[in-house]
Amino acid sequence: MRTIEKLTDPAAARRLFRAGLQVPTPGWAPGYAQANLIAVPRALAYDLLLFAQRNPKPCPVLDVTEPGQASTVLAPGADLRTDVPAYRIWRDGECVAEVGDATPYWRDDLVAVLIGCSFTFEQALLEAEVPVRHLTERRNVHMFRTKLACRPAGALAGPLVVSMRPIPAPLVARAVQVTGHYPAVHGAPVHVGNPAELGIADLSRPDFGEPVTVNDGEVPVFWACGVTPQAAVIASRPEFAISHAPGHMFITDVRDRTYQI
Amino acid sequence: MRTIEKLTDPAAARRLFRAGLQVPTPGWAPGYAQANLIAVPRALAYDLLLFAQRNPKPCPVLDVTEPGQASTVLAPGADLRTDVPAYRIWRDGECVAEVGDATPYWRDDLVAVLIGCSFTFEQALLEAEVPVRHLTERRNVHMFRTKLACRPAGALAGPLVVSMRPIPAPLVARAVQVTGHYPAVHGAPVHVGNPAELGIADLSRPDFGEPVTVNDGEVPVFWACGVTPQAAVIASRPEFAISHAPGHMFITDVRDRTYQI
Repeated sequence: MRTIEKLTDPAAARRLFRAGLQVPTPGWAPGYAQANLIAVPRALAYDLLLFAQRNPKPCPVLDVTEPGQASTVLAPGADLRTDVPAYRIWRDGECVAEVGDATPYWRDDLVAVLIGCSFTFEQALLEAEVPVRHLTERRNVHMFRTKLACRPAGALAGPLVVSMRPIPAPLVARAVQVTGHYPAVHGAPVHVGNPAELGIADLSRPDFGEPVTVNDGEVPVFWACGVTPQAAVIASRPEFAISHAPGHMFITDVRDRTYQI
Repeated sequence: MRTIEKLTDPAAARRLFRAGLQVPTPGWAPGYAQANLIAVPRALAYDLLLFAQRNPKPCPVLDVTEPGQASTVLAPGADLRTDVPAYRIWRDGECVAEVGDATPYWRDDLVAVLIGCSFTFEQALLEAEVPVRHLTERRNVHMFRTKLACRPAGALAGPLVVSMRPIPAPLVARAVQVTGHYPAVHGAPVHVGNPAELGIADLSRPDFGEPVTVNDGEVPVFWACGVTPQAAVIASRPEFAISHAPGHMFITDVRDRTYQI
């Protein structure tokens, strides 16, 4: 596996992604918030905002664009059509393409919703001496579709998606406390321990992202994940949507501490 | 002034309001969350949710109803058309009626948005030995339209509205800390001290609610207020809306601690 140097400046990172680099973003631009992207036609945007309101753990909304616009208050100068490392293009609930540039697919009626990402609190975990395995293993995060249903909203329904981080048992409480201060980027875990209770049969086979090592004495800890709207797209089959590829996030210019409470 | 016994049970309080009692609700059902009401036609509901997302301090959304429905997950069995003590009916930005029963005005296309209310954290203030003047003076809270503009959203724009509580100087920090744990009901203050900086010329003349006594040694402390959508209705003149009358809130069955972080 080729090792790519992770840039520390958000704008520089976005320039690399705009130029074509497609990589997962854990550990990039530490100290800056990262965001999930889900863009839908204006006709579906009310249902999407309502879905987010009814499911605030997986879908904390950080910004919503004007229809057709690709700019965001989270990173002035950025272009949401090009500055995410990888996009998924969805038609009728099927992923029809994974691309590095969404410009050819963008529509005048698209509303882009940026949703908090748990990568944002990973710097705080590290500062609290809680190890983050997918960072040390230089992998994408481990994500699973659960058996828990989100509250539906209009045309949108689907399961909760979670990210998993293995945490040494003595540090679980600290991980809960640190992340609980970041509700806008998923906050405290939704589940600690037994994956079977979430309907996860095999921890080594994530639905999205990459598996990481779980050592003896470590507890799998699950956080609500901003891939949840993609699971709703798969389940609900709207005519069109654009999302980021899981783990390939939009890096904002907002400091992570901005979201700390 | 006739003293009315404040009921402690939310359902019993709602029954009294449904029967016709029109009173401000500070101090009613202590320990239970209260909510602002703003109901708009479905055609304006996206703009309202977007306005709330862009102005989360004044507009933390607790629930959104299906179009035409008057039920809410916040209080199963309650009827949003009757169980608020007093309603304002808005046409083209004018308050055309203040009524105790909104049923004759309710429309099949109305979406009701329930927004957190700062009365919810007043029990926590009292338990932290921070006095709440409008409770001791048995008045409605003191509310002002400020010169601060909200972020517009579609057809909705308008000023930030705040509630004011005079706090003894040595207790201001504690008031900030206690309320900061309740972001879903406006959280920490938006301003501490000098009212002129908010464009408030005379503290004794609130725009909504009732004036309370400010004693020597007390600091006026301002919290974002859920009357803000009513100020947006006044400024933006949508064809129709129904709101609660300021200070006359919907009392939910949700414990205030549910919103504590």
